[in-house]
Amino acid sequence: MKIEDRVNLNILLDRYGSLLTLYQAEIMRDYCSYDLSLSEIAEARSISRSAVEDAIKKATKKLENYENNIKLGELKERLKKALKEKDLKKLEEEINGI
Amino acid sequence: MKIEDRVNLNILLDRYGSLLTLYQAEIMRDYCSYDLSLSEIAEARSISRSAVEDAIKKATKKLENYENNIKLGELKERLKKALKEKDLKKLEEEINGI
Repeated sequence: MKIEDRVNLNILLDRYGSLLTLYQAEIMRDYCSYDLSLSEIAEARSISRSAVEDAIKKATKKLENYENNIKLGELKERLKKALKEKDLKKLEEEINGI
Repeated sequence: MKIEDRVNLNILLDRYGSLLTLYQAEIMRDYCSYDLSLSEIAEARSISRSAVEDAIKKATKKLENYENNIKLGELKERLKKALKEKDLKKLEEEINGI
């Protein structure tokens, strides 16, 4: 996985990871946060490599679905922009809209 | 439904409503935003009153589960507090943590 993809997936995992099953969350944590390989995760859990791959695919899809609907990334960018411009009125509007 | 509960449910519906099924989202909109009664919703959709009640219960549970996990309400309160105190450093920290 490219470092950029890993960073992005880690952010989604922080935002929405508690909505995954424990099994998915643990595998994603091993994969994204600890950067273990599929084989390493499979061996540690005594499951097949394809089971790990399957769990990662499903969990990634779930996380992306949450982001596409709840859009915390877009909210964050709007808040950052308003803060950078010291636009307190805009900040207030954005915060009230949460 | 008490007005306060309705306001709270409306907020959750705005935050997480796009994660409901279309059927659930429409019924919740009728119930929370347009304040229709169970009987009115049932009649308009030619379904039973208990089917409406069931959809509302399930959707409410889903919305509350999203809130309990993603906790946008708590984030909002922390941001509001930091803004009120004009604590830009705290605001920056909170925004970066999203």
